[in-house]
Formats: sequence, C-alpha cells, structure tokens
Amino acid sequence: MALTREEAAGLDAADPLAGFRERFAIARPELIYLDGNSLGRMPRATRERMTGVLDEWADRLVSGWEEWIDMPTRVGDLLAEGVLGARPGEVIVSDSTTVNLFKLCSAALDAYRLSAQGVVVTDRDNFPTDRYVLEGLAEQRGLTLRMIDRPDDLEAVLSDGTVALVVLSHVNYRTGALADLRGLTDVARRYDAHVVWDLCHSAGALPVDLRENGVELAVGCTYKYLNAGPGAPAFLYAAEEVQQRLRSPIQGWFGQRDQFDMDRSYDPVDGIGRFMAGTPGIAGLAAVEEGVRLTAEAGIGPLREKSVAQCELIVALHDAWLAPLGFELGSPRDASGRGSHVALRHAEAWPICRALIERADVIPDFRGPDTIRLGVAPLYTRYVDVWDALDRLRGLVERGEQRLVDAARSRVT
Amino acid sequence: MALTREEAAGLDAADPLAGFRERFAIARPELIYLDGNSLGRMPRATRERMTGVLDEWADRLVSGWEEWIDMPTRVGDLLAEGVLGARPGEVIVSDSTTVNLFKLCSAALDAYRLSAQGVVVTDRDNFPTDRYVLEGLAEQRGLTLRMIDRPDDLEAVLSDGTVALVVLSHVNYRTGALADLRGLTDVARRYDAHVVWDLCHSAGALPVDLRENGVELAVGCTYKYLNAGPGAPAFLYAAEEVQQRLRSPIQGWFGQRDQFDMDRSYDPVDGIGRFMAGTPGIAGLAAVEEGVRLTAEAGIGPLREKSVAQCELIVALHDAWLAPLGFELGSPRDASGRGSHVALRHAEAWPICRALIERADVIPDFRGPDTIRLGVAPLYTRYVDVWDALDRLRGLVERGEQRLVDAARSRVT
Repeated sequence: MALTREEAAGLDAADPLAGFRERFAIARPELIYLDGNSLGRMPRATRERMTGVLDEWADRLVSGWEEWIDMPTRVGDLLAEGVLGARPGEVIVSDSTTVNLFKLCSAALDAYRLSAQGVVVTDRDNFPTDRYVLEGLAEQRGLTLRMIDRPDDLEAVLSDGTVALVVLSHVNYRTGALADLRGLTDVARRYDAHVVWDLCHSAGALPVDLRENGVELAVGCTYKYLNAGPGAPAFLYAAEEVQQRLRSPIQGWFGQRDQFDMDRSYDPVDGIGRFMAGTPGIAGLAAVEEGVRLTAEAGIGPLREKSVAQCELIVALHDAWLAPLGFELGSPRDASGRGSHVALRHAEAWPICRALIERADVIPDFRGPDTIRLGVAPLYTRYVDVWDALDRLRGLVERGEQRLVDAARSRVT
Repeated sequence: MALTREEAAGLDAADPLAGFRERFAIARPELIYLDGNSLGRMPRATRERMTGVLDEWADRLVSGWEEWIDMPTRVGDLLAEGVLGARPGEVIVSDSTTVNLFKLCSAALDAYRLSAQGVVVTDRDNFPTDRYVLEGLAEQRGLTLRMIDRPDDLEAVLSDGTVALVVLSHVNYRTGALADLRGLTDVARRYDAHVVWDLCHSAGALPVDLRENGVELAVGCTYKYLNAGPGAPAFLYAAEEVQQRLRSPIQGWFGQRDQFDMDRSYDPVDGIGRFMAGTPGIAGLAAVEEGVRLTAEAGIGPLREKSVAQCELIVALHDAWLAPLGFELGSPRDASGRGSHVALRHAEAWPICRALIERADVIPDFRGPDTIRLGVAPLYTRYVDVWDALDRLRGLVERGEQRLVDAARSRVT
C-alpha cells in the first residue's frame, strides 16, 4: 500500500474511475470531503436536470404527470438493475427510509401472521431510526423487542423459535462493519424469521446482490453514496415472490389499482407499486435518477474495488502515523468485513473533528462518543485526498490543534 | 356579474392582486390554466431558490444541514401564521398528505384510548386517499368504518356515541362543496369524537383559521393553491394543546429528542416536531417555502375575495351559456358553500375535457364520471381567463368538437 504522496498520486493516475470526479460540482477543490457517507456530493447533471424538471412543471403544468407518474418505479428499476442486483419491478423510490422501514416491517408482521408473543430483533448499535421504528411497532403490537450486541449474534437469539422479524443494517453506520447479508438471511429463514435489511450505508458503494443473496425485504437511502441530495426520497425493495403477500399499512392513492377510478375501496396494485402511499416528490426523484445513473455507469464492482483500496490506505496510514498519537482503529481490520468508511477512535474525537474542519479543510464525520468516520466515495474521492487528509490529521494532532477550537459548538448531522 | 369580455377585463384592471400573476413563470400566455387546484403554477422565485439549494448542497456539503435541519418547522411556522391561522409550533412540513394523515389518525386512535368497538367515519365522496387510509387503519385495529353521504350528516352518526375518529375534507375535491369547519368540529367534540381535517383543497385559497375554529388536527398538500410543485412535501397541524398526548406511529430519528445523541431509546421531542419521521426532502421544502411566502404576501382574505368573484363569474356564464347546452352545475350555487373551483356536469364531460385541452388551449380537470372541474387560483388566474375559457367551452360544445377527439386516450391525474 502506498505510503508516499507520490505513490498515492500514481494510484489516481491509474484509476479507471478517475474521470467520474469531474462529473461532480466541486466548489472548492482544496477542501477534502470524507463525509460522502453522510451526504454525497452533487452530480453536475443534477443541476441541469433540476432545471429541466422546473421547465416541465412551468410548461406542461398538470400534464407533466404523464411523464412523472411512473418515476417511482422507473427510477426503482434503474436502481434495481444498476445498483442493487434486483429485478425490475422489485424496487420503488419514494418516501423516507424511516417511512419505508415502517411499511415493510408492519407489512411483514401482518403477512406472516405473527403472534403477539412474537419477538422482533435488531442490534443495539443499529442506526437510531431503525431501532425507533421497531420500538414503536413492538409497543403498538405488544411484541418484545430484543437487542443483540452485533448482527453475528442473530442465530443465538433465533434458536428458541419466537423471533418473527429482524432488522439489520448491512453496514454499521458507526464502525463500518459489514454484516453477512447472505449468511444472516439464510439463518433467519431457517428459523422462519424474516429480515428487513437497511442498505443506507452500502447501496452504491458495494455489491448487495439482493437476489443472489436471497434477500426478501430491504430499504435504503439515496443521499449518501447515490448522491441524490439532502433528504432525497429513499428506496424500498421487496422480492417479487413475496410482494403479493404483503400490504402496506399506509394505504394511499398511489398504491391503488386504477388510481383514477376513484369510487372504489382500496385494492392495491399487483407488484411493488403497492408500497406507494401519497404523491411522490418529483424534484427529489429526478435527483435520485441522476445519482443512480452515474453509479450504475461506473459499476458497483469497480466502485467496491476502489473503495476497498482507499480504505486500506486509511488503515495503513492510521497504523503508521496515527496509532502512535492515541488513535485506535474502530473498524474491522479485514477489508472484506468493512463497508466504505473507516472509523478512527480517539478520546478527543470531537475536538479533532472540529479542528479538521476549521483548521485543516478536511470534512470528516463525528459519531459519539469517540468516533471519527472517514468515508470514501469512490466516484469522486482521490487517493491523494485520503493521503492529504490523514497527513493533515496527523499534523494537527501532533501540534495539539484540537485544543484550539471551540468544542462546545453544537452539532448537526 | 360581468357578462361581457370588456367587463371582465375591467375587473382585472381593478384587481389589487393582479400584479401577482407576473410572479409566476407562464410559458404560454395564450394557454388558460384552470387546474391550479390539481397542480399550481411555478413561482418565478422558486427557480432561483432551487438553484440556491443546489449551490448550498454543492458548496456547503454536509454542513448545509445547519441551515436545513429546522426547515420542516420553519416553513411550518410560515404556513401556520401566513395561511392557516395557526400558531408557530403547530405545523410541520414533511412527508406526503397520505403519510401525515396516517400519522395523525393513528396517533389520535392511540391517544384517546379508543376501544376496538370504536367507529371511524368519513364521507363516501371524500378524496380516495383519505378513505383508503381509514380503511386500512380500521382493518388493522378491528374498528368499523362508517361512510356518511356528506359531511353534514355527521351529527346523525355521532349520536350513538360509538364514533372515535372522523376524517373530513374542508372542500370536496369533486364538487367544491365547503364543509362547515367550525360547526362540524364542535359537533364532534360534543360527542367526544376527534376530527382530522384534510385541507388539500382549501389551504392557500380560503381562510381556514384553524385556531379560531377550534380545529385539533389537520393535514394538507402544498402543490395545489400553495404552488410548491409536483409532489412537494405536505403539512401536518396539531393544536398546541393536544400535541403532548399524541405519539406518531412512525417513530423516526427526526422526531427524537437530542437527535444526535444516538444511543438512547425513542423519546419524542416536545411539540410538533414529534411528527417528523425520516430525513426531510430539502429541495421540496424550499419550494414550499417560496410558494407559501407568495400566498402569505397576498393574504388569504383578498385571495378568497377574488376566488369567490371568479367562481361567481363561472356560475353566471354557465347559467347564461352552458346550461342550454346540457351542462348542470355540480357545485353548490351559494358562494359561501363553495371552495375555489366550480364543477360542471355533462354527459360528455370526458371528451369535452379532451377537446378543451387539444382544441381550445384550456386546461380544466376531469373527475369521473361526469364532472369538469374549473379551478381558479387567484394569485394568477385573470377574470378574462375565466371569460375566455367559458367562451371557448361554449363554442366548442356548440360545434360538437368533443366528438372529434380521441376520448379513449388514457388519463393521469
């Protein structure tokens, strides 16, 4: 692994994905952005596309819906085939990850006639919204919510046969640890439990191969590695074979058969469209379409390869430069067990993050209590960005600059 | 009421709101748009604002959230004070009308400890998504859904004391009939039932005065009279006094107290923010802010006054010109009982709508089986638009042009 800046620059020169960086709007090239795992950068095409959507609205007015109405499934198909390893007709893009998770969990609990004695499971360190959604459903339905310490502990809790539903994240938002999508899905199935996978931190950065891995149900966001912008609509996946058994708890007119025949009772469409609820946000969908297109064009295989190489570079530089300064690797050391970010732990993580932003022009991400997340987004992150960021981080801590910032500053994101 | 085109032009010349028309992007001035009650026009300011949001994203990246994170409540406050007659802290903008309706209905059913013997009520002619949401909740909770023929029949069904929850639209989407917001809210309260009002067809076009009318719970969309664009996020209102008793069924991280202290169980924030779920769509919110600003600037009083005058003009021209051609008024005749659109019924309504669009450059709206909706949006509809549209409609039907169009063409919206 390259340890000189020249070697890092050499990797960039040989990078087959290098050309994608200029497809993004990069306002300040000197700023190193390692938080694409929180909010991805803006593709240049998105700016033009948004103008196009505004023109469609202004010019075509209500008849624009002839174009817009199938966007949730059309963009879903693009995502399914280009990114998720799913089939057309298995994915929609609409609503938020939270709302989609609620829909799928609730539908699964209904469809599989899970008794009130049922147990729902997630891991203690899962992303908050996943835990909150499950807490709410458990309370509403009189189910027991059991927290496991890590996804790998799933089998132990399944063995008594009471577990109905499991919610797991493919990549842990804090540590970057990659869960075994295939293995855990299989284990759950053996015990007649159903898993809803949260792909927020993997979709667009690494292969998820939903069909190949036998995944039944999944959700994920589009504003991280898919670069669709702040709060862009999320996706919902249900394998073709299970769709007809499932009913969304939120029965809305966009999920209704013959939507404009308005005098009938609710009768959901066949297929994935039954998970639509209200009118989808078209500006957001257009941005998702552009982001997904770029990702699909680059290809998940090459993206993963570059992401692994860049995360390995972070680990190597951490070992060489940062470990002596009190840092500790907060992510799995083995690349095959890691997503597209590396967590570094340090007792002064929060002021170090502030110092990186304010004094070193590097944007990392902080997750309490002591974790600095460095995310690589292989569509636009360069090897020299990684090298420079770690170099600036090393220098900053060597000079103790984290003690010069106002660490009381309040946090968002 | 003016019956000559000159008189209509005179009304435009004297119209204090006339200047607002040029605040909208109007691609083809010769096109008469009477479907702002389905999708409002695009404010010019929205184009610039969207560019601004894209710049914020590209330039500020994740730190843009410092600005964005309170948009659902900030835009909600603007809407509350400028349009809805509510207080700051009583409205959020996020998610769709359908999802918001689900949240409020579900929360009300939980909060008021409504028994499984409870009855939920809506009217047969309510907008489909409202009926579907209630159907779903009734089924999930073992409640009885009772349909009344019209909102005015509410008291009869309340009298046996079994009704828990009522969902009504302030303005009927088909006929434009205006329900008695104050009266029906009071009646329900007398019988210990709770009403969720759907304001989709009234917000931005007429006073709703939520506080003055004692309204507890309401939802509505922003893409009609509030001109926020296709599928823009919807609003949710809960009166301050009832907020603390209510919990959203969809527990998401944007509703959590100390959102970024991520290791705790779900504990909703105090206030309206507890109805947030996932990450809100920022582009959509920015468009809502622009649309609401324009509406608030014009003022709901003057907007209603103009809307009434224009609807009266439609009725007068219908009586003079269209009734002899087989048309029938599908809306209440009395302006005080009507929203901002007029329904005209005709046996050939669908081909007439097609002919208006294809041959007369007028965009109305069709609602099955036999209704043509003509909506006036007082921010940009002129009196001469109304006069010309009705004149073109009369000529077209006199010449039988509705028989020259391909009426088999499929419909969206």
